[in-house]
Amino acid sequence: MITGKNYIGNRLSGIGQKTYRTFNPLLNIENSHEFVEASIEEINEAVFLASDAYIEYNQKSGSEKAAFLHAIADAILALDDDLIRTYCSESGLPEGRAKGERGRTIGQLRAFADLLDEGSWVDATIETAIPDRTPAPKPDLRKMLVPLGPVVVFGASNFPLAFSTAGGDTAAALAAGCPVIVKSHPMHAGTGELVASAIIKAAESTGMPNGVFSNLNSSGIEVGTQLVQHPQVKAVGFTGSIKGGRALFDLASQREVPIPVFAEMGSINPVVLLPEALQNRAETLAKTYAGSITVGSGQFCTKPGLLVGIKSDALTNFVNSLSQEIIKMEPSCMLHPNIIGAYEKNKQSAIGHEGLVVAADYGDEVVGVNYARQAVVTVDGKTFLGDTKLHQEIFGPLSMVVQCEDASELEQIISNLEGQLTGTIISESNEISEYPRVIAALQNRVGRIIFNGVPTGVEVCAAMQHGGPYPASTDSRFTAVGVQSIKRWVRPFSYQNWPDELLPNELKHDNPLGINRLVNGTIMK
Amino acid sequence: MITGKNYIGNRLSGIGQKTYRTFNPLLNIENSHEFVEASIEEINEAVFLASDAYIEYNQKSGSEKAAFLHAIADAILALDDDLIRTYCSESGLPEGRAKGERGRTIGQLRAFADLLDEGSWVDATIETAIPDRTPAPKPDLRKMLVPLGPVVVFGASNFPLAFSTAGGDTAAALAAGCPVIVKSHPMHAGTGELVASAIIKAAESTGMPNGVFSNLNSSGIEVGTQLVQHPQVKAVGFTGSIKGGRALFDLASQREVPIPVFAEMGSINPVVLLPEALQNRAETLAKTYAGSITVGSGQFCTKPGLLVGIKSDALTNFVNSLSQEIIKMEPSCMLHPNIIGAYEKNKQSAIGHEGLVVAADYGDEVVGVNYARQAVVTVDGKTFLGDTKLHQEIFGPLSMVVQCEDASELEQIISNLEGQLTGTIISESNEISEYPRVIAALQNRVGRIIFNGVPTGVEVCAAMQHGGPYPASTDSRFTAVGVQSIKRWVRPFSYQNWPDELLPNELKHDNPLGINRLVNGTIMK
Repeated sequence: MITGKNYIGNRLSGIGQKTYRTFNPLLNIENSHEFVEASIEEINEAVFLASDAYIEYNQKSGSEKAAFLHAIADAILALDDDLIRTYCSESGLPEGRAKGERGRTIGQLRAFADLLDEGSWVDATIETAIPDRTPAPKPDLRKMLVPLGPVVVFGASNFPLAFSTAGGDTAAALAAGCPVIVKSHPMHAGTGELVASAIIKAAESTGMPNGVFSNLNSSGIEVGTQLVQHPQVKAVGFTGSIKGGRALFDLASQREVPIPVFAEMGSINPVVLLPEALQNRAETLAKTYAGSITVGSGQFCTKPGLLVGIKSDALTNFVNSLSQEIIKMEPSCMLHPNIIGAYEKNKQSAIGHEGLVVAADYGDEVVGVNYARQAVVTVDGKTFLGDTKLHQEIFGPLSMVVQCEDASELEQIISNLEGQLTGTIISESNEISEYPRVIAALQNRVGRIIFNGVPTGVEVCAAMQHGGPYPASTDSRFTAVGVQSIKRWVRPFSYQNWPDELLPNELKHDNPLGINRLVNGTIMK
Repeated sequence: MITGKNYIGNRLSGIGQKTYRTFNPLLNIENSHEFVEASIEEINEAVFLASDAYIEYNQKSGSEKAAFLHAIADAILALDDDLIRTYCSESGLPEGRAKGERGRTIGQLRAFADLLDEGSWVDATIETAIPDRTPAPKPDLRKMLVPLGPVVVFGASNFPLAFSTAGGDTAAALAAGCPVIVKSHPMHAGTGELVASAIIKAAESTGMPNGVFSNLNSSGIEVGTQLVQHPQVKAVGFTGSIKGGRALFDLASQREVPIPVFAEMGSINPVVLLPEALQNRAETLAKTYAGSITVGSGQFCTKPGLLVGIKSDALTNFVNSLSQEIIKMEPSCMLHPNIIGAYEKNKQSAIGHEGLVVAADYGDEVVGVNYARQAVVTVDGKTFLGDTKLHQEIFGPLSMVVQCEDASELEQIISNLEGQLTGTIISESNEISEYPRVIAALQNRVGRIIFNGVPTGVEVCAAMQHGGPYPASTDSRFTAVGVQSIKRWVRPFSYQNWPDELLPNELKHDNPLGINRLVNGTIMK
């Protein structure tokens, strides 16, 4: 079922010259399928089709688009073992994770379908006319959200399903009414093609226009660069490294007509360990955090990479417990030799840093060739403050404990961090109120703040904010997780004195869709 | 009352070396006050104060901020004739316009105050915990909008009150909880200082932190450049030319930490004249449009600069009527010699363009030295399509009528336009349905579409979208007019399992503010 070709709209095509294979990190061998990178002609055709499809797709009702999203979910499920097997062979991740992530992907698609079926997400706002107002009559104004146009989605290496081909960005953009062109991630091109085939099947069975979706193979930066620079592309979604996200942001900002780039990038997700909590439950916390640091081989964007506390016996006790607990964890395979290579390099560079102490390191015994060896390092506050290199994410199962002199240094450390996806406070119920400046500093640097929990495990719901100040995201004003991520792909549009019969149903006088609308300042159905 | 100094927070300061004066275009002389451009030390101090004030201002309740905005409105009114006289002497605009614009400015401030008093604008979204959910418990998540931090506002030349010192951008940012630093417009520095004094007075009387507002004099690009590049500035609002807006956007995008720039820039606001409407009411339309083109000397961003119709006797009749009507209008003074200089230059260059025909030109009789002479030019569709220079805005009372061969050429012209603030359709009730492709093309290029009206006159209300695809705006996803413009200065923020007593009132279990919230998918109070 995997052909190695691109989907240019509904059509399989592989006319390019450049080919590549994916890699099985568990077996440490290349997988057999050969993928053909999209050529410039194929890229242009995909964008042309998307631009054309936009007009027709834009006219589809919410329930028609919802049926499309449900059909995608069904078609992904129908891929069954083929998909799970391919996923595992291209990621080294276990079957349980594959199935869990598939569940999340399906769940996201269906959540957007529900949002469309309900319909109020368009933020319909109506102000009715006052023809006899003086000095000038008030016109009838009706506003709603409309799709931006063709969107390019870059899949993430660490979520071959939930943040890739039919992942959150794609689901949100299709729900918004935007055709999607996926720049397939080279590490899971087979998984990508299978999922793309499901989307195409769903588009055909629900009567969506050709070009509403395309999937382009790509092993380097050329395909992505051409897509982001294409005049007919209107927005970009990306999940990955700061370097990659910033490069796309720069390309998009330098266009003659700039377009938005929603890039989710790095984060070390600081965790503040307050003294009483450490005093009372260092061991439990250590066990919980050993799990959170190593889950998925530390390859989550919400991995707690930085634990910060004030020097005390309790903090020492916590470091010792965390070290013991983390060594007990079974190492696991990373996504790709390049990724474990980078992890080992960054880990060695951290370990070699003057002032850093290795508290735990899984050691040299090889449990599997691409298996990551987890580690905990400690550093004092002054050393940490003195070198911003220590503030950078290390992708993999390593975390750093910063041992501060006092609350003031703790606050200073938090204030000096770059933007983060999350921040966590570990606290007894009363002691948090003694640290208002630490809390304020943390709130100013993150998109989500957690009380007595772990940052890993990003709930998919309307109240989730997954996106923080730069460089956690290029645009902290939007979330990448949860149905409100649809807002990235739309703009408000006003109709003035427009004839009722020509208005979209969302704005018609009689409210035929029965959605919530803000009418002259009051929410009503 | 005008000192010529800067407000660095509450303190008047003028330590810089560079000075300048404003200009009275009616009298064609410089005004007497000398303004001192802000020095680099003053700029840094203003940003430092704003950054510091942000922490405290952010803690103010909605009603405290509302009281501040009302106090600003009151203090502006208390400036009374001083303000009106200064406004007129620095803009050449008549007293009626000054008072009208003051009314709009006051109205905007009070509308934001009402929004804050009501409180639901923060989009509170709550998903309550499901502790026994399997396989993992669902956490309690609560999300709301929080302010970005210090904002820089660039005043517009053509709205010395409503889009300047205490204009829409400032009102929206202060309402959002962001301290504001205004880069004062050099053409109305005196008006700016008076309004700044009102804001400072209001800040003091309502107990707002020093630094919540600063006003910096500036005659060139240096002050603005330094502000936009300052690491502690978090967002920028601008109204003006494409060249100016794009320069700020580029500066902001190239920062180590990029920040959003909301620039409202050029627009020619295309008007599509459908045949039957022209047939039935060419004379009435001509009279209406002669007014819309010349109001405020054509210095509105929504001036209809492009009228497009299909060649016919009715269109010829319309052009003739428009020409007669527009010559009847009394010419009026433009804002500044530089502005009328640019208008005359652009007008001459248009008139000299091969294929352009002058249908009306007020002629050489001088009614006042800086008075603009209105004009109408015509061109055929092919010539217009062949030169994108003809698609650019001419700031002033000139409009171009494009005479197309047929509906297909009309559609092609609309499709080839750059992004616009508005688009208008002049149509008999039935004929519009014969032009679906023209309407679709127009919708794709604009932020607001008007049926049988004029684009000038931007209603300040929740259903207004003032902002269109680039280059009408740098970010079409936000409006610059109406209370929803507050959304430009905020980001969503999530609290996970956060103790109820530490949550902001907007998210507390009991909903003490009684605002509308989305709780587990249902809007409730």
